Amino acid sequence: MSGFVWLVGSGPGDPELLTRKAARVLAEADVVFYDGLVPLPVLALAERAQRFSVAKRAGGGGTSQETIHRLLVRAARRGKRVVRLKGGDPFLFGRGGEEALALAAAGVPFEVVPGVSSALAAPALAGIPVTHRGLASGLVIVTGHGAASYRPVLGGLRPGDATVVVLMGLARRAELAAFLLARGWGAGTPAAMLLAAATPQAWSWTGTLATLGAAEIPDPLRRAPGTLVVGEVVSLAALLQRSAPAAAPEYLQGTSR
Amino acid sequence: MSGFVWLVGSGPGDPELLTRKAARVLAEADVVFYDGLVPLPVLALAERAQRFSVAKRAGGGGTSQETIHRLLVRAARRGKRVVRLKGGDPFLFGRGGEEALALAAAGVPFEVVPGVSSALAAPALAGIPVTHRGLASGLVIVTGHGAASYRPVLGGLRPGDATVVVLMGLARRAELAAFLLARGWGAGTPAAMLLAAATPQAWSWTGTLATLGAAEIPDPLRRAPGTLVVGEVVSLAALLQRSAPAAAPEYLQGTSR
Repeated sequence: MSGFVWLVGSGPGDPELLTRKAARVLAEADVVFYDGLVPLPVLALAERAQRFSVAKRAGGGGTSQETIHRLLVRAARRGKRVVRLKGGDPFLFGRGGEEALALAAAGVPFEVVPGVSSALAAPALAGIPVTHRGLASGLVIVTGHGAASYRPVLGGLRPGDATVVVLMGLARRAELAAFLLARGWGAGTPAAMLLAAATPQAWSWTGTLATLGAAEIPDPLRRAPGTLVVGEVVSLAALLQRSAPAAAPEYLQGTSR
Repeated sequence: MSGFVWLVGSGPGDPELLTRKAARVLAEADVVFYDGLVPLPVLALAERAQRFSVAKRAGGGGTSQETIHRLLVRAARRGKRVVRLKGGDPFLFGRGGEEALALAAAGVPFEVVPGVSSALAAPALAGIPVTHRGLASGLVIVTGHGAASYRPVLGGLRPGDATVVVLMGLARRAELAAFLLARGWGAGTPAAMLLAAATPQAWSWTGTLATLGAAEIPDPLRRAPGTLVVGEVVSLAALLQRSAPAAAPEYLQGTSR
């Protein structure tokens, strides 16, 4: 009798932004394989499960994708209820598609549990609506893992027509800003860096495409996950942050906002 | 003493894909103003709240945006805990930005609670990862509300470089397919229509850009919310749907998959 694998998104960082379904399958899991960006309080919901980190390391190393596939298939074939827990959403730059294909090829039944992606949540929590009437009628999401990953998509985009969100792109912010400026985007186009969004360490910077490249990240946050946002909607953050309540929710405390 | 407004995303349809935070603030709410696409079991979580529909109607009519702003501000000024409940995510084509600005202008404290967007969840639940190594290195999200809303964004995109997701675009699928074909996208580019995703009525169609325009929607689903997906990643649905478990989760039952 075969087990079952859930490919689960753990959301953007705040354990309260986990879905109820993810909380349920975690509570019922026998085994959990989790990534580096999974919030610890979320992992703790898997009370009765064996938990294994399968984090990758920046620049290579850590658990290979092929090893993850093998671990998932082997646990399921032992009849286990397996949760593969990922940061954000499993199918948006999460390599969930590769894992799903490996499970399908092995005949292991599985299900995807979508999560709140930081591509939407990080801007929202910083007061930036990714679309807004009159400012942006579309949203483009890319990664900054390599120039090859964002250039084809952003290269054809007319300046200002859509909001651009870049996941995992902090290290390449100067290169990315230069690329957009060379494509005709205005130097004054608002831009934001959002680090450790939806966590107590949340930190944000807003400026322009001209200043993004040289913007500095505080030392304690240099390894934090980060999201870049470029587009006129970023200008709304100044208005929407100001309205942050006196009794700020827990994940807004301790921020620079 | 002022009340408080939460701008809450209710997710893509499955009440289990609500976040735990959304469930909590609903349970604590005094008043809920909800949209047409909010799942009824989610609304039912607001046990002690007065609940008011502020749905818009296709083609105009229903509650105006200005009226919604007035209702939110008035309830908050009466000291109420107010939830503004929207389908999907409040800041992705949800006009949440406009409501946030109205609250900020009125000095009403508020907070955004991001939700799982159907732009990601509808494809995921149909076996379509919106990004996948070698197939798509980016994602573009637009609405089909009018040609003016998607043409500027999609017009510059080189064919096949990114997955295109169109929310609220079913009625314009022929026009949209023709537009992409005229921009050089291949007639054989895989395309999908996903209706009533994450609900027991979920229905999906897959084909190509050449056949999308004439694809027919079953009568009972003509008013269901729908998502279009265009790009090579759609081809993975054939592999990933086949692996649907014998004991299918509740929201996969009764589908055409």
